[in-house]
Amino acid sequence: MVDDVERAGGKKLGEFDIIARYFAPLATDKAALGLRDDAAVLLISEGYELVATCDTLVEGVHFLPGDPPDSIGYKALSVNLSDLTAKGARGYAYLLSLAVPRDTSPAWFEGFASGLRTLQEETGIALVGGDTTASPGPLTVTITALGLVTHGHAVLRHGAKANDRLYVSGTIGDAYLGLRLLKEPELARSWNLSAEDVDFLVGRYRRPQPRTGLVLLIRNFAQAAIDVSDGLVLDTEKLAKVSHAGAVIETSRVPFSPAAQKALTRAPELLEDLITAGDDYEIVAAVPETSAADFEVEAKAKGTSLTMFGRIEGGGDKIRVIGPDGAPVTLARKGFSHF
Amino acid sequence: MVDDVERAGGKKLGEFDIIARYFAPLATDKAALGLRDDAAVLLISEGYELVATCDTLVEGVHFLPGDPPDSIGYKALSVNLSDLTAKGARGYAYLLSLAVPRDTSPAWFEGFASGLRTLQEETGIALVGGDTTASPGPLTVTITALGLVTHGHAVLRHGAKANDRLYVSGTIGDAYLGLRLLKEPELARSWNLSAEDVDFLVGRYRRPQPRTGLVLLIRNFAQAAIDVSDGLVLDTEKLAKVSHAGAVIETSRVPFSPAAQKALTRAPELLEDLITAGDDYEIVAAVPETSAADFEVEAKAKGTSLTMFGRIEGGGDKIRVIGPDGAPVTLARKGFSHF
Repeated sequence: MVDDVERAGGKKLGEFDIIARYFAPLATDKAALGLRDDAAVLLISEGYELVATCDTLVEGVHFLPGDPPDSIGYKALSVNLSDLTAKGARGYAYLLSLAVPRDTSPAWFEGFASGLRTLQEETGIALVGGDTTASPGPLTVTITALGLVTHGHAVLRHGAKANDRLYVSGTIGDAYLGLRLLKEPELARSWNLSAEDVDFLVGRYRRPQPRTGLVLLIRNFAQAAIDVSDGLVLDTEKLAKVSHAGAVIETSRVPFSPAAQKALTRAPELLEDLITAGDDYEIVAAVPETSAADFEVEAKAKGTSLTMFGRIEGGGDKIRVIGPDGAPVTLARKGFSHF
Repeated sequence: MVDDVERAGGKKLGEFDIIARYFAPLATDKAALGLRDDAAVLLISEGYELVATCDTLVEGVHFLPGDPPDSIGYKALSVNLSDLTAKGARGYAYLLSLAVPRDTSPAWFEGFASGLRTLQEETGIALVGGDTTASPGPLTVTITALGLVTHGHAVLRHGAKANDRLYVSGTIGDAYLGLRLLKEPELARSWNLSAEDVDFLVGRYRRPQPRTGLVLLIRNFAQAAIDVSDGLVLDTEKLAKVSHAGAVIETSRVPFSPAAQKALTRAPELLEDLITAGDDYEIVAAVPETSAADFEVEAKAKGTSLTMFGRIEGGGDKIRVIGPDGAPVTLARKGFSHF
């Protein structure tokens, strides 16, 4: 790189120091070549396919400037693992690109790396390469995650059939409420939330769980799956559309956390936001009606939370949302769009 | 994504329009699932290893705000292919993350995609996935490139041995001069450059060649290789250091283009900048002395430009730079650092 040579003088931490100190310890797979090379060399075992996915988080768009650095690292990796889980793939390795302001502190890198480490330890994925760049703009993190799935067994976004049951993991809308609370803390009072509720919801925004425990269930039972990043309604619609089908969502079945239920009791108009705002990183899976009972038994045996919230419909690619009273709900929007 | 929902209203181009119109046509491999999924599914043939690399370009750091969009697309992919070439790997597939200002025009996306397309057609690599995000900051492009190499044959950055000859492809320092000329056009006159010289040097900054024609030569002859992004001296030092060796560079042997030679004649003090500024994306290869003659014959037969500019030395990991008069050159810096 040519440009900023003259500014490269008196910094405390060089690019190579940053890599050696904070990222090399995360490169636990030999494919990473100790991060001392420009590339990783990976051997994919016979019988496996590679699943590759890529997600970018931008400060001020996907996380807030004041968010703790460990939560930024955690979230950046988690949203990618979530995509792998939706494919029925296990995380294998990831590449990290970090464009950060020149005055980023050692403590920030330390925290960021610790968020990555936590999730590496939980899931077995390892850092194998990447790029660290100074940027005059907002901190931007891009992770490309590589996962493995037995050959021919990847679960795709398309493939759902009429009458498939639609399941979703965890609860929906918490991240939206967490972000609202970070921006307008006084909402806690009007929504009747305790300090614990607020912590829970903010945690759901900052540290989405990648639901990697669902990989086998998804692979064994789902005909199609997607992770919810842009809103439950929009992402369900995407899954249905590429499957050349429609879908119906029953809002009375959508799983909400106790904290979200409290807020909904005080402010029922939040319902539409909860199901369209996104950032949930929960998994939506379409399961054939005939295997739904087995799927529920296995999910319960594993202690995983999966809730049936709708079904795939034939005859067009429309999505219908049904309110608690059984009447259709008209939404101002179906989900998040960047542009 | 939760944050900017309210701003998502009246745009001409939605995220899905951008993908469908500009990027889906680049997804020529079926692994891409038509870019209608969140991930790509790739089958790696038996006997091959996967090489993964990742590079980020930030507007104002790696390219200039006024650079033509096709050159930005071209450069973003080229710098990744350059890393694959240094590993002796052929490009197979890539993921593209684009963080762009909200008001980015259709013409920009069109141009950017055409730069990618040009290089896809030249090299056979194909887009398989990615992420498109709005950002309040400078345009940031991250590409993760996946390449293939026969099992066990990847060329690494380490592995060089004392007395290996050091070769470099193409010419060094052109991109530095091109960038200087873009910032201070009046330099053309003091450097005695014609309009064609200026075009050539600016082109070298904006559209670095990935040298993919060297893949087999590198794989068959090099013990270690690296692409020159941070400067010939610094990148040679990196290669030597991880090989637990030193190196000597003879400046009189470093290949310069006719345009760069003109500038050097007028301004000999540029020499140090040319060999340390980087952004060359040429390949440095360490070739054992005993195969150097064969390497040169094969390189000549392929019509590729490779120039011997130094050698690996034992006894410590120091780098020595020798001037045209045979005396050691002391450099103010060895290359570019972001921090």
